[in-house]
Amino acid sequence: MPAKVQPAVVGATGYAGFELARLLYRHPQVKKPALFTRDSEASGPVHLDELYPHIAGNGGFPLEKFSWENLRNKGVNVLFLATPHEVSREWVPEAMAQGVQVIDLSGAWRLANASSRAVYQFHDESPQLAEQLTASAVYGIPELHRERLKKASLVANAGCYATSIILALAPLVQAGLLDLQHGIVCDSKSGVSGAGKQPTQKTHFVEVAENLSAYSVFNHRHTGEILEQLGLSDDQLVFTPHLLPIPRGILSTIYVRLKTAAEPVEIESCMRDFYSGSPWVRVFSHGKLPQIQYSLHTNYCDIGFTLAADGKRMVMVSCLDNLLKGAAGQAVQNMNVMFGWHEEEGLR
Amino acid sequence: MPAKVQPAVVGATGYAGFELARLLYRHPQVKKPALFTRDSEASGPVHLDELYPHIAGNGGFPLEKFSWENLRNKGVNVLFLATPHEVSREWVPEAMAQGVQVIDLSGAWRLANASSRAVYQFHDESPQLAEQLTASAVYGIPELHRERLKKASLVANAGCYATSIILALAPLVQAGLLDLQHGIVCDSKSGVSGAGKQPTQKTHFVEVAENLSAYSVFNHRHTGEILEQLGLSDDQLVFTPHLLPIPRGILSTIYVRLKTAAEPVEIESCMRDFYSGSPWVRVFSHGKLPQIQYSLHTNYCDIGFTLAADGKRMVMVSCLDNLLKGAAGQAVQNMNVMFGWHEEEGLR
Amino acid sequence: MPAKVQPAVVGATGYAGFELARLLYRHPQVKKPALFTRDSEASGPVHLDELYPHIAGNGGFPLEKFSWENLRNKGVNVLFLATPHEVSREWVPEAMAQGVQVIDLSGAWRLANASSRAVYQFHDESPQLAEQLTASAVYGIPELHRERLKKASLVANAGCYATSIILALAPLVQAGLLDLQHGIVCDSKSGVSGAGKQPTQKTHFVEVAENLSAYSVFNHRHTGEILEQLGLSDDQLVFTPHLLPIPRGILSTIYVRLKTAAEPVEIESCMRDFYSGSPWVRVFSHGKLPQIQYSLHTNYCDIGFTLAADGKRMVMVSCLDNLLKGAAGQAVQNMNVMFGWHEEEGLR
Amino acid sequence: MPAKVQPAVVGATGYAGFELARLLYRHPQVKKPALFTRDSEASGPVHLDELYPHIAGNGGFPLEKFSWENLRNKGVNVLFLATPHEVSREWVPEAMAQGVQVIDLSGAWRLANASSRAVYQFHDESPQLAEQLTASAVYGIPELHRERLKKASLVANAGCYATSIILALAPLVQAGLLDLQHGIVCDSKSGVSGAGKQPTQKTHFVEVAENLSAYSVFNHRHTGEILEQLGLSDDQLVFTPHLLPIPRGILSTIYVRLKTAAEPVEIESCMRDFYSGSPWVRVFSHGKLPQIQYSLHTNYCDIGFTLAADGKRMVMVSCLDNLLKGAAGQAVQNMNVMFGWHEEEGLR
Repeated sequence: MPAKVQPAVVGATGYAGFELARLLYRHPQVKKPALFTRDSEASGPVHLDELYPHIAGNGGFPLEKFSWENLRNKGVNVLFLATPHEVSREWVPEAMAQGVQVIDLSGAWRLANASSRAVYQFHDESPQLAEQLTASAVYGIPELHRERLKKASLVANAGCYATSIILALAPLVQAGLLDLQHGIVCDSKSGVSGAGKQPTQKTHFVEVAENLSAYSVFNHRHTGEILEQLGLSDDQLVFTPHLLPIPRGILSTIYVRLKTAAEPVEIESCMRDFYSGSPWVRVFSHGKLPQIQYSLHTNYCDIGFTLAADGKRMVMVSCLDNLLKGAAGQAVQNMNVMFGWHEEEGLR
Repeated sequence: MPAKVQPAVVGATGYAGFELARLLYRHPQVKKPALFTRDSEASGPVHLDELYPHIAGNGGFPLEKFSWENLRNKGVNVLFLATPHEVSREWVPEAMAQGVQVIDLSGAWRLANASSRAVYQFHDESPQLAEQLTASAVYGIPELHRERLKKASLVANAGCYATSIILALAPLVQAGLLDLQHGIVCDSKSGVSGAGKQPTQKTHFVEVAENLSAYSVFNHRHTGEILEQLGLSDDQLVFTPHLLPIPRGILSTIYVRLKTAAEPVEIESCMRDFYSGSPWVRVFSHGKLPQIQYSLHTNYCDIGFTLAADGKRMVMVSCLDNLLKGAAGQAVQNMNVMFGWHEEEGLR
Repeated sequence: MPAKVQPAVVGATGYAGFELARLLYRHPQVKKPALFTRDSEASGPVHLDELYPHIAGNGGFPLEKFSWENLRNKGVNVLFLATPHEVSREWVPEAMAQGVQVIDLSGAWRLANASSRAVYQFHDESPQLAEQLTASAVYGIPELHRERLKKASLVANAGCYATSIILALAPLVQAGLLDLQHGIVCDSKSGVSGAGKQPTQKTHFVEVAENLSAYSVFNHRHTGEILEQLGLSDDQLVFTPHLLPIPRGILSTIYVRLKTAAEPVEIESCMRDFYSGSPWVRVFSHGKLPQIQYSLHTNYCDIGFTLAADGKRMVMVSCLDNLLKGAAGQAVQNMNVMFGWHEEEGLR
Repeated sequence: MPAKVQPAVVGATGYAGFELARLLYRHPQVKKPALFTRDSEASGPVHLDELYPHIAGNGGFPLEKFSWENLRNKGVNVLFLATPHEVSREWVPEAMAQGVQVIDLSGAWRLANASSRAVYQFHDESPQLAEQLTASAVYGIPELHRERLKKASLVANAGCYATSIILALAPLVQAGLLDLQHGIVCDSKSGVSGAGKQPTQKTHFVEVAENLSAYSVFNHRHTGEILEQLGLSDDQLVFTPHLLPIPRGILSTIYVRLKTAAEPVEIESCMRDFYSGSPWVRVFSHGKLPQIQYSLHTNYCDIGFTLAADGKRMVMVSCLDNLLKGAAGQAVQNMNVMFGWHEEEGLR
């Protein structure tokens, strides 16, 4: 039996980082994760359970200041970055230089296309190296990129909204069933944890409760990911995110038109075939639509659809837990694929 | 000064009926409303504040059993029906015969087109009379049918979802700005009071909280109203309602394409002109989108929009309180127009 | 008819300040309120409806920078301070010097007893003047201090928790019915708006939703008010506040023991007699307990009780809307009493 | 290795039953549970995932009609009853006769004292046998009755509220630290799943959301359990439950007085010693209070306390997930003790 893998998490104090820490702590194939905070959090807590008493009584989950030396001393093989985009953009080249595999939960390395990347305004120390890394980075949705993930050293974990939409559409787009000229509408709704742990006016309880609001219309950062992964042009898809008064969960309602009229069973087959070897996608029978509750606290992405009587207009509904299949769970699933483990390992 | 109008409400114990009772009790132009329950509620409460202690200390809001004789004795001029569709369908002919004006909050008289009406499966005692009444019924959105309402004896108060969608689209459709061939997507989200006061699995707190669900995809009853009022054919609009984990409020996100590229100011002008004399519609500036909270507990319908850089793709957001502008408030507004009062009367 | 009163609000951008602005705008006895922000909010909004689009379409509610000169120019008669304790403590002496009547919503002037006041750590420029003002300040619960309020120039508007508890207990304490040696337990639960509009970790949606937490056990600032107003010593009452996952509303569950066994009707009479001339307190019949919903968006304080079979142990429940009867509504009610208007004026 | 134990659940379609099914399905020491519905649910679903799509993709969790013959054929060793009180009262004698061990989640067998039992109004076929069974039933809180549970054939799983209160108080009561003459106040708040899956007016989303309500004051059924388990008389404890607008979780705030003034460390030691061998109780340090979120979706009961400066008055806070430590989780923990397994088995 080979030595176990040593994972580390930077940014374990955020919502996604905390979920990652919990998942890695009970993952049977890895050693206890090293949990790092960045320098700026100097006077912070020394155990994660000070911030999250949820995990009290389980050894405390010690936190350490991050340094590359510290990373080397711990023999870290795989580094999870739950850090802001700019930090991930800056740190990944160094991690690569040190031979550490990285699974980055930010948007820093998701976009191959330079013009889509403009939404992030990165400053790359070495633009040439950044381009090389961008080219080698694998977009982190195992159901789409399993083979490439097995050889990846840099994984750009997919965005939460993007995952819910891409998983619903990929089978149909790849099968050429959709009338792409007509355009696709993606109306997504997310719980508040997707906005991060930092308190802002936007996440104030009184502003969110008893409310619903659309935001970032026509300019949300995940749009670029969705277009690239599905091979669509900018005018073929409209994506509108909304802020739901719940802590977690995403539901995307997706409106498409088929090229030619189809029977429900054809769509269902297309979807089921595509995900036949994928334990974390559940395809619902025609007319049965997933709800946010069903996938909460799991790594599932649930997908359902209803076809109109004309056989051409179709509404799809896709749900997932934004902190699991939309972030930490998918990161662990990506790790599982990278290291050749079963995709469900550590996620049940 | 003429004798005041005597209103009555049937179905005052439901959510919309209760709001109606409250609005009418403080309306300066009408006498205290008669609040009726139907026979089947025989052993029920005798005062509305037994069911809704919210209004305790204000005279109790006495309830009475409904009978036509009782109605006549009270000298009722205007009858609000907050009753199931079937009951409204059955009672309106009798009310008309008695010379009482009716504002019906159900879906019984909203659809002129017999085939759309199939979703309701009414049994009309006298089909010919029913057709006559259908033809004379005015669809109850004052912003669209002000002149006809002034002479109406039967008002079919508009559906809550339908109001939010029709008010957003009507100015643009009437101005001929929309590419209707491309189709319109209406993704609506409603609080739970829209489902009524009757406890069901669907309205159980544990099923709704921490959740979001789509329902009645391609077959919600309000679809027919929207199509008729906007003059659209069935394949030109997709409407999907969702159940939000909040008590009240509707937000509709509406996706349209313009025939020719426009500037935001043109859209804004079109909307503002259309609603210039309408105190209960607030048009937001381009890029400012309404949220559900803004119109809660008011009779406003708030409408905003964002135009894509291409000047053609547009996302509109429309919000209202489903129990006020979506039901009881609009009913009172309709009454105000019918009787020649200011549209804001009793609604501030 | 005399010239109308000119009110002003400082701190109109907070939750209580906003409610105050709304109430004063529609109050029939006063001019449009001047809405002031403090200097530190220099680059802020110029109309209140930029922060609260809820009130859009009603003239915008213009905001102005506060200065004493500005205050004089506007001819302000009555100044509402919805400001932090320290600011109120500093500004009131100046306002008094200028001859302006003040209704202060902070805790700055509520406590007569210097030792209770230690929880606030004020720095008084002139301690002697501060003591004088403290002595002249009237604690702002009209139901208890109606006569003194009529002549007050400084009103210390009561705390939200304190109001709910004092109104429940005052009739019984004054009637000498309670066994005070046994002690009183007050277990209160409040919606999040009570914590203010400033975003903090404590008010982050994800921290509050699906949660309940006790805080400030044995040291909440409102404890002193309650003890002083009821004439109790520190060891006769325990008060524990909790943070509820709702935007607004307070429910206090209060546990007392009667000196001698009583019948429910005696308690009910005691309560009803005490509040017979008070339109904003609703006493429920024995065994009927108020719920938070009943008084939301109203100025009512609802009080109910259940007496044990032994006739001595009693549980009381008291509910109010923390932004209305617990803050802005009570402030307006205090103003009504000060100026000799009907207590309900502007509050229906 | 011995043959695995065969569990069965009756009432798996309710909230607690569903949690039980999930826990037993992944419990390493038992066979797949048989999931029974009662006859009255004749036309119901045939797989549990039809009602709870949350578990779709995991084999469906087949449901069967209950019969004693069916039970025997499956070789059931341990029967979990998630049934109404009356059903449990009727069925347990037959199960005992068949030699099946029973863990009953209802209140049917929790009370030794006949007079406390009056709250349930059971009709016992054979009163004598019922008394025998009552005498042999072990109250199902492992932390209190570990030794008796090892030999139990009938376990009366403790009530959810009762568990939160008893676990907080038992160490102090048994150590004789409390002034019982002074009396104890237990103010408990529970999420809505505690009221069951059956839709009622009380569980309607619109009635619960934005609300808080006290109920069953002085007469909640769990009072008897608490008194019996702690050895208190009726007048020594007041218990008031409240309905919280969240799906699950209980927080009990408990007010006690110590006989003699103590230091926080003494209380903390008393609590920690008592629970030193108990993995499912977490005692918090003085002044750190648990919140509902911390124990949600776990089998923990979290207990904290704050002692007043006088060293005598004390506020305790106790939290748990009402469907886990308050029902299904505790039932599995009881089974673990009965069969000599580790108490955490199947519960991590």
